[in-house]
Amino acid sequence: MEKLIQQKLELLFDEMVEVRRHLHMYPELSHQEVDTPAYIAAKLEALGVEVKRGVGGRGVVGTIRGGKPGKTIAFRADFDALPIQDVKDVPYKSTIPGVMHACGHDGHTSALLAFAKAMMEVKEELPGNIVLIHQFGEELSPGGARAMIEDGCLEGVELVYGAHLQSKMESGKIYVRDGFLQASEDTVKIVVRGSGTHGAEPHNGVDPILAASHIMVALQTIVSRNADPLKELVVSIGKFHAGDADNVIPSEAVLEGTIRVFDPELRKLASRRIREIAENVAIGLGAKATVTIDNGYDALWNHSEAMDTVRLAGHELYGTDAVVETSPVMPVEDFSYYTQVVPGAYFFVGAKLQDESLVFPHHHEQFDFDESAMLLIAKLFAAIYFKAQQ
Amino acid sequence: MEKLIQQKLELLFDEMVEVRRHLHMYPELSHQEVDTPAYIAAKLEALGVEVKRGVGGRGVVGTIRGGKPGKTIAFRADFDALPIQDVKDVPYKSTIPGVMHACGHDGHTSALLAFAKAMMEVKEELPGNIVLIHQFGEELSPGGARAMIEDGCLEGVELVYGAHLQSKMESGKIYVRDGFLQASEDTVKIVVRGSGTHGAEPHNGVDPILAASHIMVALQTIVSRNADPLKELVVSIGKFHAGDADNVIPSEAVLEGTIRVFDPELRKLASRRIREIAENVAIGLGAKATVTIDNGYDALWNHSEAMDTVRLAGHELYGTDAVVETSPVMPVEDFSYYTQVVPGAYFFVGAKLQDESLVFPHHHEQFDFDESAMLLIAKLFAAIYFKAQQ
Amino acid sequence: MEKLIQQKLELLFDEMVEVRRHLHMYPELSHQEVDTPAYIAAKLEALGVEVKRGVGGRGVVGTIRGGKPGKTIAFRADFDALPIQDVKDVPYKSTIPGVMHACGHDGHTSALLAFAKAMMEVKEELPGNIVLIHQFGEELSPGGARAMIEDGCLEGVELVYGAHLQSKMESGKIYVRDGFLQASEDTVKIVVRGSGTHGAEPHNGVDPILAASHIMVALQTIVSRNADPLKELVVSIGKFHAGDADNVIPSEAVLEGTIRVFDPELRKLASRRIREIAENVAIGLGAKATVTIDNGYDALWNHSEAMDTVRLAGHELYGTDAVVETSPVMPVEDFSYYTQVVPGAYFFVGAKLQDESLVFPHHHEQFDFDESAMLLIAKLFAAIYFKAQQ
Amino acid sequence: MEKLIQQKLELLFDEMVEVRRHLHMYPELSHQEVDTPAYIAAKLEALGVEVKRGVGGRGVVGTIRGGKPGKTIAFRADFDALPIQDVKDVPYKSTIPGVMHACGHDGHTSALLAFAKAMMEVKEELPGNIVLIHQFGEELSPGGARAMIEDGCLEGVELVYGAHLQSKMESGKIYVRDGFLQASEDTVKIVVRGSGTHGAEPHNGVDPILAASHIMVALQTIVSRNADPLKELVVSIGKFHAGDADNVIPSEAVLEGTIRVFDPELRKLASRRIREIAENVAIGLGAKATVTIDNGYDALWNHSEAMDTVRLAGHELYGTDAVVETSPVMPVEDFSYYTQVVPGAYFFVGAKLQDESLVFPHHHEQFDFDESAMLLIAKLFAAIYFKAQQ
Repeated sequence: MEKLIQQKLELLFDEMVEVRRHLHMYPELSHQEVDTPAYIAAKLEALGVEVKRGVGGRGVVGTIRGGKPGKTIAFRADFDALPIQDVKDVPYKSTIPGVMHACGHDGHTSALLAFAKAMMEVKEELPGNIVLIHQFGEELSPGGARAMIEDGCLEGVELVYGAHLQSKMESGKIYVRDGFLQASEDTVKIVVRGSGTHGAEPHNGVDPILAASHIMVALQTIVSRNADPLKELVVSIGKFHAGDADNVIPSEAVLEGTIRVFDPELRKLASRRIREIAENVAIGLGAKATVTIDNGYDALWNHSEAMDTVRLAGHELYGTDAVVETSPVMPVEDFSYYTQVVPGAYFFVGAKLQDESLVFPHHHEQFDFDESAMLLIAKLFAAIYFKAQQ
Repeated sequence: MEKLIQQKLELLFDEMVEVRRHLHMYPELSHQEVDTPAYIAAKLEALGVEVKRGVGGRGVVGTIRGGKPGKTIAFRADFDALPIQDVKDVPYKSTIPGVMHACGHDGHTSALLAFAKAMMEVKEELPGNIVLIHQFGEELSPGGARAMIEDGCLEGVELVYGAHLQSKMESGKIYVRDGFLQASEDTVKIVVRGSGTHGAEPHNGVDPILAASHIMVALQTIVSRNADPLKELVVSIGKFHAGDADNVIPSEAVLEGTIRVFDPELRKLASRRIREIAENVAIGLGAKATVTIDNGYDALWNHSEAMDTVRLAGHELYGTDAVVETSPVMPVEDFSYYTQVVPGAYFFVGAKLQDESLVFPHHHEQFDFDESAMLLIAKLFAAIYFKAQQ
Repeated sequence: MEKLIQQKLELLFDEMVEVRRHLHMYPELSHQEVDTPAYIAAKLEALGVEVKRGVGGRGVVGTIRGGKPGKTIAFRADFDALPIQDVKDVPYKSTIPGVMHACGHDGHTSALLAFAKAMMEVKEELPGNIVLIHQFGEELSPGGARAMIEDGCLEGVELVYGAHLQSKMESGKIYVRDGFLQASEDTVKIVVRGSGTHGAEPHNGVDPILAASHIMVALQTIVSRNADPLKELVVSIGKFHAGDADNVIPSEAVLEGTIRVFDPELRKLASRRIREIAENVAIGLGAKATVTIDNGYDALWNHSEAMDTVRLAGHELYGTDAVVETSPVMPVEDFSYYTQVVPGAYFFVGAKLQDESLVFPHHHEQFDFDESAMLLIAKLFAAIYFKAQQ
Repeated sequence: MEKLIQQKLELLFDEMVEVRRHLHMYPELSHQEVDTPAYIAAKLEALGVEVKRGVGGRGVVGTIRGGKPGKTIAFRADFDALPIQDVKDVPYKSTIPGVMHACGHDGHTSALLAFAKAMMEVKEELPGNIVLIHQFGEELSPGGARAMIEDGCLEGVELVYGAHLQSKMESGKIYVRDGFLQASEDTVKIVVRGSGTHGAEPHNGVDPILAASHIMVALQTIVSRNADPLKELVVSIGKFHAGDADNVIPSEAVLEGTIRVFDPELRKLASRRIREIAENVAIGLGAKATVTIDNGYDALWNHSEAMDTVRLAGHELYGTDAVVETSPVMPVEDFSYYTQVVPGAYFFVGAKLQDESLVFPHHHEQFDFDESAMLLIAKLFAAIYFKAQQ
């Protein structure tokens, strides 16, 4: 039966392209998606899939109940777009000014819809159940995953899978990793209050630029001294703003930055150390620092058994060379919340265009990808499903 | 004869007030003065003073040639105003929106005009010659002093005097100091170029915020280690700007600041050390710093013999308690250029209003002063003139 | 035949203990070993092993030529001790004041000798050849490995293996890892020359303590900013010495530290950045830094195919749970040089004593270990040998 | 009468030289003086001066009661030597190994004894009373001044004078200054406790070298930002010691330094800021700093009226050019405590040898001075005495 599904999926490739390009032309921003979930729900309903709309707000969850006993396995595709002006010169260019599918979520959605279509055709023969999680708002914290989980999208689910196509990874390859794959993110804001004074009279005030500079310098010690050298951590400050006049010492300096880390204990340590450094170094310099840390997504953890299923599925479909062990990466992904609740795995699928001049990073205004990656995702989902039922 | 002059000046007080209030109502910005020098020149010509207009651009120089042999002594008053909106509630409030005599130059001008009038009346009896320097553009570097000197305003002059009324110093007092009275000023701009990168990938770039913070921290060592502890120096950074996003390391950080110092050798040292620190610390951190230092006014140096004449004149007119030895101050004054060319002295005259609620610092939108300070200046100028001829 | 060997080894356990305790009582310092290599060589010769003495200086190499064709496989044990006073209360306590086998090399040696004895008994049946590398001077750079390799100990060798027992890892477990297992080490010395002066006259000198402090602070940025966050690097300064009197600024400050890293490119980067930071920050502060970096051992890299043989051997002998994937560790090991020349693998063997009160870290004056780890090493060597011949 | 005294003093010059050379040959360390005060007391008693021995411990106070009414005026000379080996090649070289009059206190003592002798000869004619304060222990805090004052040496005294000869100032000149002449001194010790760990495992400890370096860097901000730029302050760290091994992070780093300042409020501020910086920056870096500040001598303040008497006396004796206004200096002097109790003045007397090759700084092992400075001191004391009685 799996062979049949794989053949069906190949025949559905043109339709995948069509659906993806439609979505590409009508992108919607995170947490503002209206037409996209409606379109997805309609598609699923047309296939006869059981559909729940508005899951966690704007998500769509489809359920395919197989005719035979087996595990309930979820597959997730995100469907939100980005506030970027599409400048590509292609017929399927975004029609919405300033909004663009610049991360490939259109491809994820199209692949999951094709997978659903193929699986529905053999529904009665299927062991177990398939849960199709069409997620909103991945690009923008607090994301859609947590809301959809709270709203029950993982109820009864025993395994969860997801994939992200990658415009700079080789087409035809599957990139896997046990354990941490993507980092957590926290956003840091440090407001250093001194006391303004004339530049010629520093003793009559407290220089917040100097205090903030000392803090900036001391923050480096978190990575260099406090973090286990075998664990990955980044603390970066991207903004430092203070003062309006060269000869006036201002009353405030503001630092803003980001924390990226995999290990949750180290994540807590980093936040704690940022507070300790900023607050105490500021006091030492006569100033006062107020630290605000907004938690973004947690790090994404792949369960190794679930990942092994991806490896085996990849080997079977495309040979052992097609499956590549990859390093963890620093960008974030709220798929992380699914594998906190049920075992699962997330992987990357190469989608690099052959014409190098068309290869751009994700979130770039000229972003595009090799659409055959969608077929690979859909076929892998099918192979994973059958493997996982064994 | 001096007694006579002092009596005349007292009688001229009402006129001084009138002239000052007229100027106060029609202030003109530095290097944009048109009506003010015309008004002054007309006043002087009406007195019969020899007048040169347009000296150094916008300055007015009057000469009173005494009937008897003696020294040629110059007195200087500045006449420019500031880009501040006058918010005082007085009949003589500025009529020009956004422009205000918020530093008392109207008072200086009026006092010098009254002094000229009184002296003209006894011209034939006078030993020596009086040069009246009405200077434009004091508030804004490059100032008017250097231009007027280059245009000859000090030709033949043997001594030069000037005074500044002070809204926060006690009315009726004269504040004197040998040597340095006011600091030099230089403006510093340090552009630190790194190489932008994603905040999660610091190793792919060079962090200019970090390099600039190290520079900021290291700049403190100029005052703490390189300057003679017995000499005054301030190096202050008033602006630190870098970055637009918390998770992106920008490519550039910019520091802007000011140097205040009296000793010219230390001034050179400070500039040199700023360059050395910024350039080399930046290289150490993998970045590149470009330092621009714009020289503002030189420090103001009082010749002690010339200053002694002020002291003696003050003692004679108002008693020894009226003359106060003062500390040097950090604000700048382009009178400094006159005493580089001929011996001279600059001093402060208290002009604090009795009603404390009306006392504001110079350059404040509610600035005003005790107008009797004008009389004191005019009388001191006369006393100095006679003392200096002895 | 392998089964037979494993049985023989078990019977040899008492002898292993005896040999190890003998060695433990007569430890010799690195590069000063005389009796130990003589003892080893004598033992091997008594077994009929072909022996070369003085290899690379003080090493002993034995060769067992099997009766059948096969691969030549080397096994290495180090035999030097440490400058530590043994304070244990055991009958086999070190008899040499201030010298102690505090790292378990006595155990390595004893295990390799037992392995040799067992293999010699079946010599004629053996496929391939066994090279027994008894190495001197592992604890002290430049170590013995490079000298022995240069002196030919790896000639004809196709695979090389080694093991280290670990007093804090669980007895009975084998700890493996592909790729980097142990870090490289470089020693850093930074001499910062300023110019001495009285503490009350900082402007007459250059403060080297301040410059060195700025360097110390800036060195943190190598790990926090220059290193790929996914790669491990440590730069630590363990010594900072400057000055003799509180009121005299000295002319020199000295920093000494260590670099630990796996990736050779990052290792080079770290050294380069230390130089750049120290030299340029010193110049910025008016001082001069001279940086000396002595390269210690390279990082130890395990070939994954060779490591897989260890895994399989471990599974077979002790079950899959006995083989544990481990993280890389920061201590250094000059086994690294062997796997630069021929494929090979190095692994850890748990040797934690059951009585927790007797568990101490390596290099501790009370260090001891579970002697059964020697048996495990010998048996694993045998199993590896047979697996690798297949 | 004054003329007579001055003549007598000139005749006493040879005796001054003899007495000084005797003292020079038998120097005694601070707070260990036995023979010196006995010698002085004997000399004074031989002159008929009323003598108190053991004042404040080891001081000698002589009183000459004049026959006529007048003020009681004290003159002070210190008599302790330094732990320096005299290496000069002169007949009067120190006979005590490792002890030397390397600061000129022998000269001060001799001058005061000669002054006493001359004044005793006209005792009956003298207005007022002379108090001769021969002070021990000036070189070593807590000094002898406070103890002698507590023991009553200033009782009834209305004015106090002292002088220090200076080997690098021009012979024949008198150096005067109103207000602060010499700085206060405090000794700072900062112990930074971290937590030791292996250099390869920084995250298992707290790096005290790094914390101490951050403190060292931040201490610079006291002078650069907290001190009024018009006031003099030095904070110098002369010692930074931490660690024994390049690859071990130690548990402690120690900084030791000195504070020099004139203004007592700024002195307090500096101590407070050192504590705030050290304690809080340490906490920020995860460490703990303990700050100990030992107060040394207070700054020496000259009362201007008392100083004017010195000026006038100098003018009269040696002409106006002989009296030079000097800058304040950073070395300390416990004469400061006398002028806290009664009005007084302290001044420098040039004692530079003509042969430049023999000119060395104070506290140098070859220190010597122009002995004619003693005559100048004695004559000035006499002139001051008579002027002050008027």
